[in-house]
Amino acid sequence: VRRTGGRSARVRAAVHAAARELIDSDAEVTVAAVAARAGVNPTSIYRRWGTAEALVLDVEAERLRENSPLPDTGTLRGDLLAYARRATADITRPGGLAFIRALVLSPAGVEGAPSVRGRGAAIQAMLDRARDRGEAALLHTDVLDGILAPIYLRTLLGIGGPDARRREILVDRLLGPAGAR
Amino acid sequence: VRRTGGRSARVRAAVHAAARELIDSDAEVTVAAVAARAGVNPTSIYRRWGTAEALVLDVEAERLRENSPLPDTGTLRGDLLAYARRATADITRPGGLAFIRALVLSPAGVEGAPSVRGRGAAIQAMLDRARDRGEAALLHTDVLDGILAPIYLRTLLGIGGPDARRREILVDRLLGPAGAR
Repeated sequence: VRRTGGRSARVRAAVHAAARELIDSDAEVTVAAVAARAGVNPTSIYRRWGTAEALVLDVEAERLRENSPLPDTGTLRGDLLAYARRATADITRPGGLAFIRALVLSPAGVEGAPSVRGRGAAIQAMLDRARDRGEAALLHTDVLDGILAPIYLRTLLGIGGPDARRREILVDRLLGPAGAR
Repeated sequence: VRRTGGRSARVRAAVHAAARELIDSDAEVTVAAVAARAGVNPTSIYRRWGTAEALVLDVEAERLRENSPLPDTGTLRGDLLAYARRATADITRPGGLAFIRALVLSPAGVEGAPSVRGRGAAIQAMLDRARDRGEAALLHTDVLDGILAPIYLRTLLGIGGPDARRREILVDRLLGPAGAR
């Protein structure tokens, strides 16, 4: 049995599970509420995450990674369309705005959430596979600008995520002559 | 002297001025605080705006309209570049996130803020001028997806608004063969 990090990993798992339950029930996620539900000392949460918003970011980014493995369809266009479809479903699900709300309310932005940076690296790996096949070379910030940003802003504005036709337009703009630089 | 709407207009002006002062001083904008500062009954605010978030949306959208007249450079590309530069400056100014925060926290989204819908119509007018000159026909939702969304999401993520080179890339993607449909 591996001992190193055992207690630390258990605390992390308990805190994540408690935070998820609060997020999913649309309850307010405070450090005190998470600590009580997880059976840990609030100090452990402050020490590791700093704020409730940073914890929500970390939890939601991990959930994204678990639930939404990045696609590998064999073509860049197929990967981007599948990614856009999945991202739209993730953000428009009940409670899906918790992630963006946490981002907006977190003074440190993504700096407080290693999982968010990890997601960027995973997207870059998907893009690099395409480049290695001889397709366009994109950066993960291109996907942020061209696909994730409109999905999020449309949802925030309450006008609904992009439909299938609009997602094709977004992807084709990225892949066009001006987009594939 | 026009009487109709006189008192109503004065209340509106007083409430807007009070809300702006609170926003600019980074104070919490509550209906009670705005009412006290404006010297009006909180009921007047609830009746007209519903929530503090809807009021902030209305105030910030009006400020946008006043401070940032839409460009008319003679070319669509020039207009979009000027718009992108201005939108980046607006959102990255101190307190510039108040608008997005209000959007995120407002359950009604843009529905509660007529000024936001008015801004969409003004952007469409700018795009229609270009179409009438024989340039590409874009919708204001294209500008939302391709320009405003990445500016906002980058700012929310704490990675900074797009620089001049990135803004050119965003505009050229919109104007490319796939974007100008």
